[in-house]
Amino acid sequence: MATPRNTTNSVECWGTYETVLHGPEIGNPFVDIKISAEFRFKHRAVEVDGFYDGSGIYRVRFMPDTVGGWTYLTKSNVPELDGKSGRFICITPTQRNHGPVQVRNTFHFDYADGTHYFPIGTTCYAWAHQGDELEEQTLKTLRSSPFNKVRMCVFPKDYPYNKVNPQYYPFERDATGSNDYTRFCPAFFQHFEMRVGDLMELGIEADLILFHPYDRWGYDGMSSEVNDRYLRYVVARLSAYRNVWWSMANEFDFCRSKSMEDWDHLFRVVQESDPYQHLRSIHNGVLIYDHSKPWVTHASIQSSDFSRIQEWRQTYRKPIIYDEVQYEGNIPEDFGDISAQELVRRFWEGTAAGAYVGHGETYLHPLDILWWSKGVVLHGQSPSRIAFLRKILENGPPEGLNPILSQICSWRNTTNRVAGKEGEYYLYYLGLHQPAEVKFTLAPNVLYTVEVIDTWEKTITPVEGKFQGAFTIKLPCKPYLAICIRKLDQGKPV
Amino acid sequence: MATPRNTTNSVECWGTYETVLHGPEIGNPFVDIKISAEFRFKHRAVEVDGFYDGSGIYRVRFMPDTVGGWTYLTKSNVPELDGKSGRFICITPTQRNHGPVQVRNTFHFDYADGTHYFPIGTTCYAWAHQGDELEEQTLKTLRSSPFNKVRMCVFPKDYPYNKVNPQYYPFERDATGSNDYTRFCPAFFQHFEMRVGDLMELGIEADLILFHPYDRWGYDGMSSEVNDRYLRYVVARLSAYRNVWWSMANEFDFCRSKSMEDWDHLFRVVQESDPYQHLRSIHNGVLIYDHSKPWVTHASIQSSDFSRIQEWRQTYRKPIIYDEVQYEGNIPEDFGDISAQELVRRFWEGTAAGAYVGHGETYLHPLDILWWSKGVVLHGQSPSRIAFLRKILENGPPEGLNPILSQICSWRNTTNRVAGKEGEYYLYYLGLHQPAEVKFTLAPNVLYTVEVIDTWEKTITPVEGKFQGAFTIKLPCKPYLAICIRKLDQGKPV
Repeated sequence: MATPRNTTNSVECWGTYETVLHGPEIGNPFVDIKISAEFRFKHRAVEVDGFYDGSGIYRVRFMPDTVGGWTYLTKSNVPELDGKSGRFICITPTQRNHGPVQVRNTFHFDYADGTHYFPIGTTCYAWAHQGDELEEQTLKTLRSSPFNKVRMCVFPKDYPYNKVNPQYYPFERDATGSNDYTRFCPAFFQHFEMRVGDLMELGIEADLILFHPYDRWGYDGMSSEVNDRYLRYVVARLSAYRNVWWSMANEFDFCRSKSMEDWDHLFRVVQESDPYQHLRSIHNGVLIYDHSKPWVTHASIQSSDFSRIQEWRQTYRKPIIYDEVQYEGNIPEDFGDISAQELVRRFWEGTAAGAYVGHGETYLHPLDILWWSKGVVLHGQSPSRIAFLRKILENGPPEGLNPILSQICSWRNTTNRVAGKEGEYYLYYLGLHQPAEVKFTLAPNVLYTVEVIDTWEKTITPVEGKFQGAFTIKLPCKPYLAICIRKLDQGKPV
Repeated sequence: MATPRNTTNSVECWGTYETVLHGPEIGNPFVDIKISAEFRFKHRAVEVDGFYDGSGIYRVRFMPDTVGGWTYLTKSNVPELDGKSGRFICITPTQRNHGPVQVRNTFHFDYADGTHYFPIGTTCYAWAHQGDELEEQTLKTLRSSPFNKVRMCVFPKDYPYNKVNPQYYPFERDATGSNDYTRFCPAFFQHFEMRVGDLMELGIEADLILFHPYDRWGYDGMSSEVNDRYLRYVVARLSAYRNVWWSMANEFDFCRSKSMEDWDHLFRVVQESDPYQHLRSIHNGVLIYDHSKPWVTHASIQSSDFSRIQEWRQTYRKPIIYDEVQYEGNIPEDFGDISAQELVRRFWEGTAAGAYVGHGETYLHPLDILWWSKGVVLHGQSPSRIAFLRKILENGPPEGLNPILSQICSWRNTTNRVAGKEGEYYLYYLGLHQPAEVKFTLAPNVLYTVEVIDTWEKTITPVEGKFQGAFTIKLPCKPYLAICIRKLDQGKPV
């Protein structure tokens, strides 16, 4: 198992410290036995739940956020697990560990160590249920991809192109396939958390989808009591992984067994169980959830309509991620048949309007191995362009791009088309427009440099000269261009 | 002058019968003298206004709509023009004269003789104010174009790329350029109506824009009294031209001198003055007019958002024409810099959603001769594709395409994407989607033929076989395709 464990008595900051305890195997420990621990750093105490991992083994995991000496003391309703104490040292993290991602500057993200994080997500719903061979190929593909977040389901998925049985099931099942919802299957979760750990090693956030409607095993129709216990178990097992995000559901409005009140309740269960307050969202089918609710950290949107971004930014005051804008591919289903050009256009449209956009790929495959669901291999032409966009974001203002609402062009409606930082940085995406020239009006007496970006050809062409006030930029007559304007600061672009 | 006139005492149906009278030249005949005539066919009487054409000449024009013998009797407040009578014969129209266009089947149009009319318009705002040489080139271009309607301004236009002075002005002006709004300039109108007549000869509807905000001469700021007199004069001169449509304004909401109540009033002036009830509309800038008002015959929309078509069809219960969806071209203004591909895509998007779409072209030109304003020559690549679309409309159901709201595809949202006639004809535009195949579910036991249309390459490829019930159509993986499905009727496609 690749699960990160402390083999010495030290753990890096935002790593996973785990204490292993041995206790009863009789009865149903998943239901009967409570185990938790209070972790202390100086006068601060954090209480975290542990979990039963089968075979009499109980684990309590903890993700320390401060370098120095920590202690812990367990609590349980059985004596063997109660009152166990210990201490460990939290050490400086390795260079690739920046901590968990959190919201910053209202509409953006960073890691806990202050490193900026621009989400460039992809979707592989069921990649972690495909068996080791395919899963390891997926990890290999991800390693050289631009993606720093993966949307993935905890439960197995039943859907067109996703009909194979998983290797593991989350609950014990009898010979007829009937679930015992009182008994989790440790092997399932051990495997699943290994894959979450693999993503962590790659520096990729795991946007974990906790419920979804694509089901033939019963997981979409569990009782409220089982749902709550499942959530608490998942949180106890996985919240000490720094790369975890909680997505309450995929297409929540297509889950017929749960009402809006149920979703609100399930959100609160996660919110109160997670000691680290990982990011929380919920992904829609056709009905947009009210993302202004306090337990939502950012909006997770299925839509290709970017015209509502300003409204949502103002209403929610949270980051807006369009994590499903249809996928590059050629399947008969219309959510998965857009061209690479069109997907890349949508990435830029969303970015220029002040949101973040996610990727997916759905090319027909003789064995039904589609990236969007099973991962394995990317076939499309969009990822290299998305990598190019990511580079541009990372070279832009570190605090992220916000919509520019001032009128910077004569005779052009730039609403939803220019993002950046007023006075300093403007990224203007032209999309399907192909003017021979664009006339800008910026501040007089401030010098700017200008680059013409071909978002499809992945070229950045500096325009000769320095610009101020009113000026005109000539363009080749072609689609998918952007113009980047940067303030010169003491002779150098900002 | 090419103005159609009756040289014998007969006139074809929907031709222009004109009676010429000689009267006073003194005073201001435009204001002082009333002239009208009552035209009678059997027991039916139609009263029409005449107009003063300068040099003591008064004309009354009439467009008869019924073959047979007509009589008339003039009325005037001066004896020389009063009580003049005459008779003429209205004869069968020539083959190319189908009469005026009118609304039919709620959302569509036909000519008065029942011939179907599918509006395929273009925009040449100021073409009739460019002098004979350019204007005749425009007519030559239109002759071999797909366009059967032209949006054009009565008043000269002042706008970027439109700065030359017109040859004629609608009102008398003094040396300082000050208008005498009480005196029309007959030469202006004689010229203008000649061009309307030229379009009529080409079978092209003249969508006459009566007011617009692009003005440096004062026409956008005339008093209400002058506006009303101007409208009555234009209607008296031009309503007997069968190809006239009245567009109250271009970008009415950009005309700062007129309130919504003013527009409603001006509409009613035209409505009560026009004996033939030519089509009436008003074109917006950003504010959509309430096209459900009774004097509006069809919606004239500036927008590239086709998502509201169903709502507007239901609200207005009138034809919806998107006559400005931005233009093919490369000017710095963003209304005129989209590619030919994109304009053609918008034509198809609008058509598939149940509307009609209009064309315009704005390529930079060393002498500022842009088709959209001055006409002359088409440079773009969209017109031949628009001709292809027109042919498809003309080979489709003669009553026009209505949105298909039933679910004809598995796993595809076809809202706004399929138009036709339920059970008989389906035109499904795929736009930017490029599935390898599409799965249809139509009625069982009804046979259909299927064609794959490449809207850009202008090809129609029949799919071998006959289809019924559930079937799959394979497609090349490329954008801008459409699928046409026709019911077989006794072995032949309907």
